Amino acid sequence: MTMFTPRAIGIVHSPYTETKSIPKGLGAKHDAEGVLEILQEFKDGLTDIEGFSHLFVIWAFDRSEGYDLVASPPCDERSHGVFATRSPRRPNPIGLTVVELLSREGRLLRVRGVDMLEGTPILDIKPYMSSVPAEKLRRGWLEEAEERTRS
Amino acid sequence: MTMFTPRAIGIVHSPYTETKSIPKGLGAKHDAEGVLEILQEFKDGLTDIEGFSHLFVIWAFDRSEGYDLVASPPCDERSHGVFATRSPRRPNPIGLTVVELLSREGRLLRVRGVDMLEGTPILDIKPYMSSVPAEKLRRGWLEEAEERTRS
Repeated sequence: MTMFTPRAIGIVHSPYTETKSIPKGLGAKHDAEGVLEILQEFKDGLTDIEGFSHLFVIWAFDRSEGYDLVASPPCDERSHGVFATRSPRRPNPIGLTVVELLSREGRLLRVRGVDMLEGTPILDIKPYMSSVPAEKLRRGWLEEAEERTRS
Repeated sequence: MTMFTPRAIGIVHSPYTETKSIPKGLGAKHDAEGVLEILQEFKDGLTDIEGFSHLFVIWAFDRSEGYDLVASPPCDERSHGVFATRSPRRPNPIGLTVVELLSREGRLLRVRGVDMLEGTPILDIKPYMSSVPAEKLRRGWLEEAEERTRS
């Protein structure tokens, strides 16, 4: 199967320099501010992006090696399949984060909601165009773990 | 920069065999049903996924070549930066689709909302855990194009 060779279109500037400093688990707040620095050669691809309040950032877990098909996330002692978690140890080490776009200065996007490490390579940015209404969401093991925490 | 080599964890079965048959543009409905067929070797990674109503599917635009930093999307005669659109012609040809999980049978996930071509390689699946509330979303050129269509 023909596949592409990933390359960075930019890098994340984040307050987090170590994995352990990233808030994790139930109720973790992801309101850290950071900057998405897009490489000069891709800058024109940002045209009009400032009209969107939220963006999808697709990035590479560049400091993760190998994967586990089943593992326990930090917020649950039970184990779950990797595709039902946000674990960094994935067959393709690709991360996905929704950020709020605060401002743009040239090829720098100031954003809120980073949960990546400083220096993380960015693979793609896409506009966030629509949401699934909260009342239509079921969140599986996460809901169950939240309920156990409450009781 | 160290980067990974993407590999398919599965393939999409979709009613769309040609790009032109995929609904596009303003008001396009993406309610087509399809099946995400996960490879046997990654099947255990699906454990507990059926608890989630919606999933992020990250996939490869395997029939797209090259990229344009600025281009016109099908729903707007004006051109926009590639990172402000869902164009297939991207520096990293990675697609992202939110699907509703209808049922799981072993390594087959029946889903609603496919907008990929039949045979598209799947790179990753992640649980959809939370939405940005609709009232907090600004959708830039898309909102403007919708308003021009209405008037």
